Amino acid sequence: MPILEIFSQGEEIVTGQTVDTNAAWLSEQAVQLGFTVARHTAVGDKLGDLIGLLKEISERADCCLCTGGLGPTSDDLTAEAVAKAFGLPLAFDEIAYRQIQAYFSNRQRPMPEVNRKQALLPQGSIRLDNDWGTAPGFALQAGRCWFAFMPGVPSEMRNIFLERVKPLLPDRFVLTPSRLVTIKTVGIGESDIQQRLDGLQIPPSVQLGFRAGIDEVQTKLLFPADYPAEETAALTYTIAERLSSRFVFGIDGLTEKVGSLAAVVDKLMCETGAALAVVETVNQGLLSAKCMGSAWLKIAVFERSPSALCERFGTAVDENDLSKTGARLAKALQDQRAADFVLVQLHEGSQSQFRDKDRTIILYNTLLTENSFQQSRHILAGPIERKQNQAALFGLDLLRRHLQDNR
Amino acid sequence: MPILEIFSQGEEIVTGQTVDTNAAWLSEQAVQLGFTVARHTAVGDKLGDLIGLLKEISERADCCLCTGGLGPTSDDLTAEAVAKAFGLPLAFDEIAYRQIQAYFSNRQRPMPEVNRKQALLPQGSIRLDNDWGTAPGFALQAGRCWFAFMPGVPSEMRNIFLERVKPLLPDRFVLTPSRLVTIKTVGIGESDIQQRLDGLQIPPSVQLGFRAGIDEVQTKLLFPADYPAEETAALTYTIAERLSSRFVFGIDGLTEKVGSLAAVVDKLMCETGAALAVVETVNQGLLSAKCMGSAWLKIAVFERSPSALCERFGTAVDENDLSKTGARLAKALQDQRAADFVLVQLHEGSQSQFRDKDRTIILYNTLLTENSFQQSRHILAGPIERKQNQAALFGLDLLRRHLQDNR
Repeated sequence: MPILEIFSQGEEIVTGQTVDTNAAWLSEQAVQLGFTVARHTAVGDKLGDLIGLLKEISERADCCLCTGGLGPTSDDLTAEAVAKAFGLPLAFDEIAYRQIQAYFSNRQRPMPEVNRKQALLPQGSIRLDNDWGTAPGFALQAGRCWFAFMPGVPSEMRNIFLERVKPLLPDRFVLTPSRLVTIKTVGIGESDIQQRLDGLQIPPSVQLGFRAGIDEVQTKLLFPADYPAEETAALTYTIAERLSSRFVFGIDGLTEKVGSLAAVVDKLMCETGAALAVVETVNQGLLSAKCMGSAWLKIAVFERSPSALCERFGTAVDENDLSKTGARLAKALQDQRAADFVLVQLHEGSQSQFRDKDRTIILYNTLLTENSFQQSRHILAGPIERKQNQAALFGLDLLRRHLQDNR
Repeated sequence: MPILEIFSQGEEIVTGQTVDTNAAWLSEQAVQLGFTVARHTAVGDKLGDLIGLLKEISERADCCLCTGGLGPTSDDLTAEAVAKAFGLPLAFDEIAYRQIQAYFSNRQRPMPEVNRKQALLPQGSIRLDNDWGTAPGFALQAGRCWFAFMPGVPSEMRNIFLERVKPLLPDRFVLTPSRLVTIKTVGIGESDIQQRLDGLQIPPSVQLGFRAGIDEVQTKLLFPADYPAEETAALTYTIAERLSSRFVFGIDGLTEKVGSLAAVVDKLMCETGAALAVVETVNQGLLSAKCMGSAWLKIAVFERSPSALCERFGTAVDENDLSKTGARLAKALQDQRAADFVLVQLHEGSQSQFRDKDRTIILYNTLLTENSFQQSRHILAGPIERKQNQAALFGLDLLRRHLQDNR
């Protein structure tokens, strides 16, 4: 597979004033097209750094997607750096100049003289017309590498990439797009997953990767384009089975795009037609906030303590048995016809235990439906926001398991 | 000024699965400490690439902050790459091992055997204890450059940087820190801010920047180390005044560190000693979730419609006047002694309007305290998650303004 690099120019990126979202966007595009993305580099507005970097890349990559540094001001140095790095003098591009003039006249504004600079392109380069802003991009071959230079403004960059750069790629590179399958889990860590896959034979052409996010842990399989569909499915299901359906809440890229745990629950809840009530002391609204957009979440109530919740819903608390208290609360809510399903989340542990990242609290989940009753218990650790988020996820996941088991 | 580079390891970064926010965060820290940040580089999990890059950096930078690749799995290669690049064999670190064991035993989980790997550190390196996750970091000098290796999980990385790495820097580098002041706003856009600053004289030594996030828009001023303190304050307040206290909820870096809007509200609410009840139809628990860790949020109730809320709290809905309905609900809650302050958020608009990113809904806020009553009305636009988030922010901001005005 051809090797591709991403190169971003901008003092605002290296100083951390701006997060470089262009690099991630372009990488995702490139991977899907069939490139191997080897490196991202960002440099500021020092001409020497820029020239050095361009030369390096021209020797080690087959393609480089570049953003930024095409503006009219003195710290926009990309064209000059290209000219110096590859000995390609800048030439005035008449068409580019007319486009820049038109951009300003369309907006009924005079063209500032500084913008003339944007019509200077390295000799022999292809102009990448910019219908979405002032600065045209340009593309050229230098050494081993084909470079495409685009503006740094995300909307302009995306349009120029999709409309101007992407169509040029198939003629220049032999590309076989690969297929990404993602197995999504909650409640199991990355190292646990790794251990469950121990000893499993994965063909060397399939790339295995992991990504631990706040809301899920992903096991990723990147299959080459010519990998047989049945074998893709077989390997995916083998792995999913090893991870267990207790933890796997969805598989992306095989038959469907599943989204987050909340999206999976949303789909399953819509199938049942049931409504849900949530009462809790522990996630402080986060579980319900994650279900935004759902029509089935009817009520969500947070109170600070199990006893406050019991008082509100007219039942008795048993401080020594939060499982029992959870069951009573769920029953009370159901009797009051609050909803078809009731999810209760209570916790044991003081406010200072909750806040202390080195101390744990215990979460008691109760799910009562028309014809079933389930409970689970989890230890929550880490900073308070993590405890909150884990509580929300474990609550959703109890619901998800019930719905998948009773489908 | 010493030259610093940022280096991120992770296939998920080069393939665009993850946006590298660590690089921007670390750069901002480094710039404030007095480093010149010259370059960001991200590479995937190819050992040869990693080794080559580490060698390059050891020759051209004075300091390098590195993230990622310290996990337990086979694609976590940083320690191995360091060992090979600089001829420093990996040695088993007894203390690191015990910390990793403790992490698991605290969570009452067995330590998977793969995690043992995380206790292997390059010979002669300093261990950077990780109290926030499993993997310790490490630091070492190689060639010209002092490297600090940290985990890629943002929360762990930030803690390790602030608590372990930052204290080591003043002894190793001659640093003259610059000063970053951030004016934080909610309810006003970036181009609006730019327009309000039009014509303002800002000295060329002061760098002005903007960053628009989900929860706030930041106007950033980077002052050189020798910039006089009074003039720093004067320029900051001039700008804050142009932006108006209606929108500015805090200024970071002048006299204090203010944090998020929720953190500002938290501090102000703690000063009052009052408790808050929130009832709403529109942010679905998000406002209360943002207040996690506060002791003053007593109750939060979400219901799908104003009429459902009114029924629950025994008052009458006026579908044609949600301001009136909000006032009635607040009064009912206060009469029931739910809390000292009551915040009601209702919305006008169907579920399909809510979901449609091209249609708007109207938010009605009511805040009732012991001796004041305030309302506000906002139009919410964009995707449903944005409407939800805006509602939560506008609710918190009404509370913030009341608290600041009555301080």
